[in-house]
Amino acid sequence: MEELKKEFTEITRLNYVRYVLGWDEQVNLPKGSFEARAEQNALMSRIAHERLVSDKIGYLIKEAEKLTGLDLTDSATLREAKRDHEQEVKLPTELVEEISKTASISHIKWVEARQKNDFSIFEPLLDKTIELQIQVAEKLATHPDPYSTLIDLYEPGATYDWIASIFKKSKQKLNTIIKKLDDSSDKPDFSILTQKWDKDKQWNFSVEVVKGLNFDFNKGRQDKSVHPFTTSLSSSDTRITTRIDENFLSTCIFGSIHECGHALYEMGLVKEIHDSVLASGCSMGVHESQSRMWENMVGRSLEFWKYWFPKLKETFPNNLKNKSVEDFYRSANTVQPSLIRVEADEVTYGMHIILRFELEKDIIEGNVQVKELPELWNEKMENLLGIRPPTNSDGVLQDIHWSGGSFGYFPSYFLGNLYGAQFYNTALKHHPTLHKEYEKGNFSNLLAFLRENIHQYGKIYRARELIKRVTGEDLNPDYFMAYLEKKFYPIYRI
Amino acid sequence: MEELKKEFTEITRLNYVRYVLGWDEQVNLPKGSFEARAEQNALMSRIAHERLVSDKIGYLIKEAEKLTGLDLTDSATLREAKRDHEQEVKLPTELVEEISKTASISHIKWVEARQKNDFSIFEPLLDKTIELQIQVAEKLATHPDPYSTLIDLYEPGATYDWIASIFKKSKQKLNTIIKKLDDSSDKPDFSILTQKWDKDKQWNFSVEVVKGLNFDFNKGRQDKSVHPFTTSLSSSDTRITTRIDENFLSTCIFGSIHECGHALYEMGLVKEIHDSVLASGCSMGVHESQSRMWENMVGRSLEFWKYWFPKLKETFPNNLKNKSVEDFYRSANTVQPSLIRVEADEVTYGMHIILRFELEKDIIEGNVQVKELPELWNEKMENLLGIRPPTNSDGVLQDIHWSGGSFGYFPSYFLGNLYGAQFYNTALKHHPTLHKEYEKGNFSNLLAFLRENIHQYGKIYRARELIKRVTGEDLNPDYFMAYLEKKFYPIYRI
Repeated sequence: MEELKKEFTEITRLNYVRYVLGWDEQVNLPKGSFEARAEQNALMSRIAHERLVSDKIGYLIKEAEKLTGLDLTDSATLREAKRDHEQEVKLPTELVEEISKTASISHIKWVEARQKNDFSIFEPLLDKTIELQIQVAEKLATHPDPYSTLIDLYEPGATYDWIASIFKKSKQKLNTIIKKLDDSSDKPDFSILTQKWDKDKQWNFSVEVVKGLNFDFNKGRQDKSVHPFTTSLSSSDTRITTRIDENFLSTCIFGSIHECGHALYEMGLVKEIHDSVLASGCSMGVHESQSRMWENMVGRSLEFWKYWFPKLKETFPNNLKNKSVEDFYRSANTVQPSLIRVEADEVTYGMHIILRFELEKDIIEGNVQVKELPELWNEKMENLLGIRPPTNSDGVLQDIHWSGGSFGYFPSYFLGNLYGAQFYNTALKHHPTLHKEYEKGNFSNLLAFLRENIHQYGKIYRARELIKRVTGEDLNPDYFMAYLEKKFYPIYRI
Repeated sequence: MEELKKEFTEITRLNYVRYVLGWDEQVNLPKGSFEARAEQNALMSRIAHERLVSDKIGYLIKEAEKLTGLDLTDSATLREAKRDHEQEVKLPTELVEEISKTASISHIKWVEARQKNDFSIFEPLLDKTIELQIQVAEKLATHPDPYSTLIDLYEPGATYDWIASIFKKSKQKLNTIIKKLDDSSDKPDFSILTQKWDKDKQWNFSVEVVKGLNFDFNKGRQDKSVHPFTTSLSSSDTRITTRIDENFLSTCIFGSIHECGHALYEMGLVKEIHDSVLASGCSMGVHESQSRMWENMVGRSLEFWKYWFPKLKETFPNNLKNKSVEDFYRSANTVQPSLIRVEADEVTYGMHIILRFELEKDIIEGNVQVKELPELWNEKMENLLGIRPPTNSDGVLQDIHWSGGSFGYFPSYFLGNLYGAQFYNTALKHHPTLHKEYEKGNFSNLLAFLRENIHQYGKIYRARELIKRVTGEDLNPDYFMAYLEKKFYPIYRI
């Protein structure tokens, strides 16, 4: 067991080194250096892969499986070590290389197709990518149906059926809420946010906010990048990035809070599992639950802004003249069916995911042709949100995920909302005064609850095990729906 | 041969990955993350070491040595591959680890000793470090005398005797020049530079200057760090750093030009040797010749400032009111015997190096006790520059090098000045109008000359081979001395 752990400590550190390269690539890399960096990435991936598939690790896993009476951490270590090892062993090197090569070209073609609004440029690559992902599902075969196998890569233990039943229930309820809000005659004034906001001041404000949320700048940093992300470069170095839109305040502020939520998770791992195979979030969905909880349930709450709005007004006196904290709060919680997922509000967001989830199922099972996707997308969009993308760039071409072969990833975004609401509900039961504390700028009790119940464990518990432990029941979308109704009906004066 | 090259391409890329870690450590790393990063560094060093000492590489070198008719690049590749391989093979792992561990503690003790101005804190560690370096020299034994073996690590092919004869000649001449300048009754006004200079404006100006010198921001960047340095993170990604002193203009501007000089060398490697064992400067001395040439011969020339001074004046109108370009030029070329090497001017700098070179020889040959060093240092300082350090922090404790075990490194700094002047002399012969071009902001012809004759070759030629090829003779300190006289006598109205 000790030897197995030691091996995985080195693999984890090799992965951290890869993440240093990745972070640098997105934050710093000069334009003319991408090719050389790609070679370095490929070399480091190969070194990590060779370690992971080594006979030594295979042997150590077999030996460890003979042990009885393993404690919680050791059994989780063995489970995750085996999972990582088998995943790498089952996928032939040629397939992995083919996927990697295809992804590079596919990404370029996707960018071009999106720019030119021409799906046919991307179509053959998407076709190839899907074919390769179906092969991946066949090789791994962790579930009887291929789509569940792919989902399992991001959401260990989750299946299509389980998610489908949750999403079905969610869809109906979301439909009702969206209709009700749409019928309101007293809607927020969204234009407050879309004024001109000085970029440097936005940056400084975002740094103050994440500091206020207890992001530890002694063990992390915030930088700027084109696509915001969070990454850990060691168990004591978690970095977030943000982007700034001069004409839209939310991008930077709420983006920073979102990434800060991810980072607080990574920063909260118990020392015992640092640099180990358990040193990360337990699933993409649970990770997303943390970012969305901080972004939406905390960062878009009235009490949060009762504390921060006066500071924001001091920073941007002209933009917020004659605006009250309530005006600002309502503006930041505008609900509006829209075409682009990443710009969607809390309420309609789920529909964007349900659309992709349904399409992915049919794609992976071969029930639809790639060339049919644009039309199917538009139909579903009209069906779910009542709007039809005028171009494919606003529709099927909008997301980067499929170009990289990430099928099965999307559901975790919406699962994150659901997990988050359920965790938050429990947190509020334990600490009914949380929101009162936000008004005073005190956000440490929520963090303490999350650290104690979620963060410290890393991958020790699987997601569904964790939610049962923390909240006493399996994932239940009712909490999220109740949260939406309680929050948004008053905002819309319903 | 192809296989050998392939192996070294991977080793070179592994080293680049290590340099990414190193750059990030100095530019970005949060304070609380150093321990974890040290573990990553150690792991990557071990992986690179294992590759370098592998039987496979030993075998490939032996096989390649049987080949006849290797071209220039291939023979140099074989020579450098063998050098790197043998160096790693000859040093026992335990010794390397002992050195690494000692260096970590030694560095901490050196910092403390310097802060407290107490040599005794550092003394035992320095003693140990010297002992380990003597062991290194014994194991490597590339030259009959141990100090030459250590020098060879930084200046391949150079020996103590060769450098000693050059330095002896230099010392006499420098002595004469320093005395003459000191006797002048019309000295520059140094205080122009030591006003208050806005930090952001200094930064922006330094970026403009290095752009003007043809640093390619498409294949590199400039950042800030405590100690300025240059590093290549791939053959198309060379990064420089600078530091900014609000009360002294030279630190940032001339520091940036210096590092830019290093970077232009690395950016000029011919594509054929990218990512190979030849992808770097041919010696520390030749590398330093490039940085000092750009910093001093170009960056501190009157013609350089004829172009840049109006821009500087526009940026800092208050500081430069009533100052002419000649005033500024003279100020930037003030000569003054001083205690700290890194702050020394062009003329007295050599004396600082000669002092260290003479001491190192005695240290490595066991002719002096470590406890005698402070007094010996002070005596030599008085002897060479006529000033005596009032504290050991201003004397023997000032440099970081010995704490890390870098004995034999110092001579390359002064060799750099000498190489630089000789190269520059040849450049001027080929392009007599260079300085006229500087007045117009055109610095590309010097770069073209250096690219064609020096940069592109990387490690293909050894330093002494290179200088003979480029200038027609072996290293000759007369060129540097003539340059000093021609430049500084007029500045001092002699």
